[in-house]
Amino acid sequence: MSFDVSQVKALVFDVFGTVVDWRKSIIREISAVGERFGIEADWEQFADRWRGGYTDGMQSFRDGKREWMKADTMHRERLDILINEFGITGLSGDETDHLNRAWHRLDPWSDSVEGLTRLKSKYVIGTLSNGNIGLLVNMAKYGGLPWDVVLSAENFQSYKPDPKVYLGAAELLGLKPHEVMMSAAHTHDLHAAAAVGLSTGFVARPDEYGSGARKAETEADDSIDVAASDYIDFAEKMGV
Amino acid sequence: MSFDVSQVKALVFDVFGTVVDWRKSIIREISAVGERFGIEADWEQFADRWRGGYTDGMQSFRDGKREWMKADTMHRERLDILINEFGITGLSGDETDHLNRAWHRLDPWSDSVEGLTRLKSKYVIGTLSNGNIGLLVNMAKYGGLPWDVVLSAENFQSYKPDPKVYLGAAELLGLKPHEVMMSAAHTHDLHAAAAVGLSTGFVARPDEYGSGARKAETEADDSIDVAASDYIDFAEKMGV
Repeated sequence: MSFDVSQVKALVFDVFGTVVDWRKSIIREISAVGERFGIEADWEQFADRWRGGYTDGMQSFRDGKREWMKADTMHRERLDILINEFGITGLSGDETDHLNRAWHRLDPWSDSVEGLTRLKSKYVIGTLSNGNIGLLVNMAKYGGLPWDVVLSAENFQSYKPDPKVYLGAAELLGLKPHEVMMSAAHTHDLHAAAAVGLSTGFVARPDEYGSGARKAETEADDSIDVAASDYIDFAEKMGV
Repeated sequence: MSFDVSQVKALVFDVFGTVVDWRKSIIREISAVGERFGIEADWEQFADRWRGGYTDGMQSFRDGKREWMKADTMHRERLDILINEFGITGLSGDETDHLNRAWHRLDPWSDSVEGLTRLKSKYVIGTLSNGNIGLLVNMAKYGGLPWDVVLSAENFQSYKPDPKVYLGAAELLGLKPHEVMMSAAHTHDLHAAAAVGLSTGFVARPDEYGSGARKAETEADDSIDVAASDYIDFAEKMGV
């Protein structure tokens, strides 16, 4: 590929699925709650449906049916439904709040901290997630993610793939769009970033959806500027 | 003092003068330009008047006379005036851009990196400056400032001491106002934060204004929750 990495000054990252393994982390937390109350259930389904509350909530905003809201709020709405449906009745309010913040305690993929640390030595690195800022800050503390800056769709009261999220991130960083590379494991995110001039970097996360019906993308199409098997490979391809 | 530090979850910091020594850094950069062109002038006055472009620009916004704008823009407007007035005629456009970003290359006070690193081990630490986000991110890279999050008045399209800057920072962090401590070397900033419920931490920066007419505050009044001589002392007072 002929992409010139020297034009890139900052890398911004999708987070859920790209930098952290949300699914195994959520299954672990909710399974522990089930075990505490002696409930046997399909906790993988619980995790996938909890995640669905977030994606459904964002779609309702895009469709003009709801106001913008934090991921925390969307997570809590769906959690309350699922707790009831799965028959979890013993949690106090504080315990439910804590469980909702399981999304603040997602484990990084095993290469993320090393890869990001290497990339940080040459580039500004930041989040560009639909997750809210408080969630992303707490997750970085939990997982040791070495961000220079935490940017979120919350900064723009919208969600990716709205162009204003990508362009807004470049503007806040004082950079031209092509000087910012969007990195994600999801090509729809990268295509939307590329459509408004950002550079793009794909990382493969074949295990994001576990063994369920939904399959992860394992390859990027030729329109993507840089593609890597993990963030250590990615750092090498970015010259660090 | 009876302030209970255990209520604090995040510390947000004023930056210019509080964490970095803007005045000596700016004098160094502009003196080097003067030397290059063989110009002798009062570079301390240049630095103070350049800083004044920023404070004047913010006041014009507060007075309703101008739209909100980035610190970079205010710096550039005043720089163009001063370059002309001081007879600096040989700078290219790129060199003037680079000089304007001298505000992205301000040296931390000698205790800042160690003190912030200690505080980061227990608290979320972030900026809460009137400087724009790109400036603050570049400054952190330059000086090794280990922020968890870069928050700016730019997030709220206003400037401190507007209450919405302090309350907005707490809201973005998902915290109650008293769980966030504003830290600054300037008590007017702390009083404005306290007025809307934030905790407050003063650090003395007696050399901020050099030997000029303007004197730095060296002590906080009794209304301030924590007061320290530098950020190492501050970390100790915050239990880390």
